[in-house]
Amino acid sequence: MLYKTENPHGGDIYRNRIIYDFSANMNPLGTPESVIKAASDAAAGVCNYPDPYCRKLVSAVAEHEAVDKDSVLCGNGAAELIYSFVFAEKPNKALVTAPAFSEYEAALLAAGCDVQRYILSETNDFDIDMDFVSCLEKTDADCVFICSPNNPTGRLIRPEVLDPIISVCSKRDIRLFADECFLDLSDKGSGDEEYSLKRYLKDNLNIIILRAFTKTYAMPGLRLGYVLSSDHDLLSAMSKSVQTWNVSLPAQAAGLSALGEDEYVEDAKRIIGKERNRLTEALKVFGWHVCTSDANYILFKAFPGLDGMLLKEGIAIKNCSNYPGLSEGWYRTAVRLPEENDVLIAAMKTARKNAENTAADIEEQAPVTTENSGGR
Amino acid sequence: MLYKTENPHGGDIYRNRIIYDFSANMNPLGTPESVIKAASDAAAGVCNYPDPYCRKLVSAVAEHEAVDKDSVLCGNGAAELIYSFVFAEKPNKALVTAPAFSEYEAALLAAGCDVQRYILSETNDFDIDMDFVSCLEKTDADCVFICSPNNPTGRLIRPEVLDPIISVCSKRDIRLFADECFLDLSDKGSGDEEYSLKRYLKDNLNIIILRAFTKTYAMPGLRLGYVLSSDHDLLSAMSKSVQTWNVSLPAQAAGLSALGEDEYVEDAKRIIGKERNRLTEALKVFGWHVCTSDANYILFKAFPGLDGMLLKEGIAIKNCSNYPGLSEGWYRTAVRLPEENDVLIAAMKTARKNAENTAADIEEQAPVTTENSGGR
Repeated sequence: MLYKTENPHGGDIYRNRIIYDFSANMNPLGTPESVIKAASDAAAGVCNYPDPYCRKLVSAVAEHEAVDKDSVLCGNGAAELIYSFVFAEKPNKALVTAPAFSEYEAALLAAGCDVQRYILSETNDFDIDMDFVSCLEKTDADCVFICSPNNPTGRLIRPEVLDPIISVCSKRDIRLFADECFLDLSDKGSGDEEYSLKRYLKDNLNIIILRAFTKTYAMPGLRLGYVLSSDHDLLSAMSKSVQTWNVSLPAQAAGLSALGEDEYVEDAKRIIGKERNRLTEALKVFGWHVCTSDANYILFKAFPGLDGMLLKEGIAIKNCSNYPGLSEGWYRTAVRLPEENDVLIAAMKTARKNAENTAADIEEQAPVTTENSGGR
Repeated sequence: MLYKTENPHGGDIYRNRIIYDFSANMNPLGTPESVIKAASDAAAGVCNYPDPYCRKLVSAVAEHEAVDKDSVLCGNGAAELIYSFVFAEKPNKALVTAPAFSEYEAALLAAGCDVQRYILSETNDFDIDMDFVSCLEKTDADCVFICSPNNPTGRLIRPEVLDPIISVCSKRDIRLFADECFLDLSDKGSGDEEYSLKRYLKDNLNIIILRAFTKTYAMPGLRLGYVLSSDHDLLSAMSKSVQTWNVSLPAQAAGLSALGEDEYVEDAKRIIGKERNRLTEALKVFGWHVCTSDANYILFKAFPGLDGMLLKEGIAIKNCSNYPGLSEGWYRTAVRLPEENDVLIAAMKTARKNAENTAADIEEQAPVTTENSGGR
């Protein structure tokens, strides 16, 4: 028996033989050397507890984000902060979009919260638009989760939609949890303040922004994320809903190193931008429906069984068929380095051809109805 | 501002200049080389998520503890498991002993649970005895926390008291959370089944046992602990009250290595036994009240201000004055290596002498009452 919900996420390289992991959305450049070194060096000092307050890291994050230190809280990965938020906030009813990252709903259910889903429309590339704002105007939810760029759709929320979302949530005193874990690697990046909720933080105590080191610096194995909020009472309550030493010593050391890696992030963004276009074109040539992505991953609809066929070649993509709002045949793939993407495209091409041949074979070999057929 | 409760624990080496840390109760031999190497080597692979199910580690723990795999759940340090237990179990009222590890109460309060304290008696060396069993017979608590050896008293719960505790809790359907994090390093160790609740596990679904790698292998910086229980529904609920990837990749790798370090643990126990006796005698010679310890730390009552005086010498001990059930002048010190304990004893001797001299000086310099004294 495996405890926890059957893992609905990508990146579980422990179950299968995986050579190319496109199922997790990491920075394609891999973990920076400086980060690996910092984590490795930190191992020598693990006879000490980690700093329970992450003093140095909080200072560094605050400087990096240009916010004050009291507006930063670090966690054991961004995912932990979703749980500590939910346990501290204890919302009665929360609104989540669908499809979206499944940990929001898992955390909310663990805390005994009612969950309402706002189903995004495929015809609209699953965009969060003004119809969502209308929904906020009349929802009885006291908490809303948004994600930009959305996971798994890769779609950013446009500034002209963000503005009214903030207004309505503030006016109606709805807590707004904004997951920006993939923003750093998107076209807009965290440098482009138009797309981040950060500029609303000061005047809106109801906003909390989630950020991760995981994706930006390809260090999911270490677990490190943080939230930003001007509601210091909320951050205090969140800090009390987890143990004293939640962020490990190697993670704190690695985080400090990572924040110096601006150039690496810029390099990654350039590669991602170029490769995402190439991968998108290839998927379209296969005749598959592609959701235009702003992020370092692409949601697309191919045919059922594609993931299993790729897995035989040691390639993992993320099956998204059981995401609320999606169905059989939907997948998410990370955008990786050119040579890795080449492997993926070639394997997809073969898989597509094999699937077509199998379909043709089945048609050809369809049993002829005889007098003896049917029956019990 | 520092989020979280003002740290009530030892081991915060980030606040002060500490050369000798007696405030955290680690294995005095320090982290085994194999564990440091495993954690250090794991850093190279942190571009992957950790195994969310800790498959290899759970198997190894199950073998080490001679229980089945389904009875093991790993966590981000033992402390996280206290929180995930409380959030999953959602007790209405819990009974904790006092003094005891403060994270039980912190977690229970975070989950909105009523907490009742059973005050242990100083005259009885703070032992959990038959009076506690009587209390269990009539308590309206649905959950009880015990700790053996108790932190900070160092006292084991004797088998003749353990038996009726189990019986009453089972009979009255009280959930029994037993913290055995320090048992491995106690005189009895985990090898001595008489003192562990493990032998009751199979027949009592209401029992859950907490164990840590932190203390036994001196690796608090990595965060790794586990619980044992035959109530698989409880473990499943606990696993769902935390994020998917709560145990980091370096922690899982280090844990696997640590389980091979039996000899190191035995060596540590020999040193602890000998040094605890020596340290106890020294404290008694100073005229201080010592709580006879079975563990790798000693609770004693000296004089207010001792910890501050030692800190000036770069030595940290744990001030226990604000533990419920204790008062000013109570401290806990870890038992460390002979040469470190020598330093502690010498520094305590000096501090004691200085305190006596200061007291004498104050008496000598006591102001003579004159006609001008007093007033506004």
